[in-house]
Amino acid sequence: PMHETVHAPRVCDIMDRHQVSITEDEEIRTAAKKLLKGETNHLTVLNLEGRLVGMVTTYDLSKAVANPGKVSLVREIMTRKVITTTPDEVVDVAAQKLEQYNISALPVIDKAGRVLGMLTALDLGKLFGRRWTR
Amino acid sequence: PMHETVHAPRVCDIMDRHQVSITEDEEIRTAAKKLLKGETNHLTVLNLEGRLVGMVTTYDLSKAVANPGKVSLVREIMTRKVITTTPDEVVDVAAQKLEQYNISALPVIDKAGRVLGMLTALDLGKLFGRRWTR
Ligand SMILES: C[S@@+](CC[C@H](N)C(=O)[O-])C[C@H]1O[C@@H](n2cnc3c(N)ncnc32)[C@H](O)[C@@H]1O
Repeated sequence: PMHETVHAPRVCDIMDRHQVSITEDEEIRTAAKKLLKGETNHLTVLNLEGRLVGMVTTYDLSKAVANPGKVSLVREIMTRKVITTTPDEVVDVAAQKLEQYNISALPVIDKAGRVLGMLTALDLGKLFGRRWTR
Repeated sequence: PMHETVHAPRVCDIMDRHQVSITEDEEIRTAAKKLLKGETNHLTVLNLEGRLVGMVTTYDLSKAVANPGKVSLVREIMTRKVITTTPDEVVDVAAQKLEQYNISALPVIDKAGRVLGMLTALDLGKLFGRRWTR
């Protein structure tokens, strides 16, 4: 029904605006420190123009731990085909992307490909947890 | 209202029954391989009786990557105070635990402390994504 569409929350309502980035030529060790410092599981990887070129998560760091000494740079472990969302996308569409691709975060990008924030499964969980308590 | 409580989904309705475990004396490298193989971010750590004694996540692996050579066993990086849920807990209560403790997964345990599965923020996201589409 029309009114559900109108009231459906959008990505900009719940996204985390404090995402952390790295560049692809930095060391995996630097990525690990940024992840720990930012208390996050996801970093966006940017090129020199500030455009999104990949994502590196704590999951990808497992590749470095599993194969010690074999990889050293972010671009050797990052994911290049990034699934993204936009600020005005309806939250349930973004949630379906997480489910479809079995991923836990979507970078939120503007039309120029710049990163505005991150939408995580945890942000969705928070929205869900508030549903019956408000 | 009464009927909302009655129909509220429970943890057993959406939990992932295929969780992966490790013991605390195994190597961090083994944990990394299990995480990659299971395509998961979370391992439960069990003692010799099969009881839950900790959790190790890809986030904890970042500690090993950030400080190479300093840690080698699961018990050096695992979290010991594990926040858990039970199969019959209402999903929104579990979602509130994730929010309150800023964590992304809860082991689902029975009364004897054995692990039955895992509830992740991703599972909640899936439930959320289905809300308007069913
Ligand atoms: C397939 S998931 C498996 C673990 C877990 N389900 C999770 O969501 O993190 C892990 C992989 O997804 C990748 N990934 C995470 N977010 C992504 C996104 N928005 N687009 C593409 N790949 C992504 C990570 O780089 C990592 O290699």
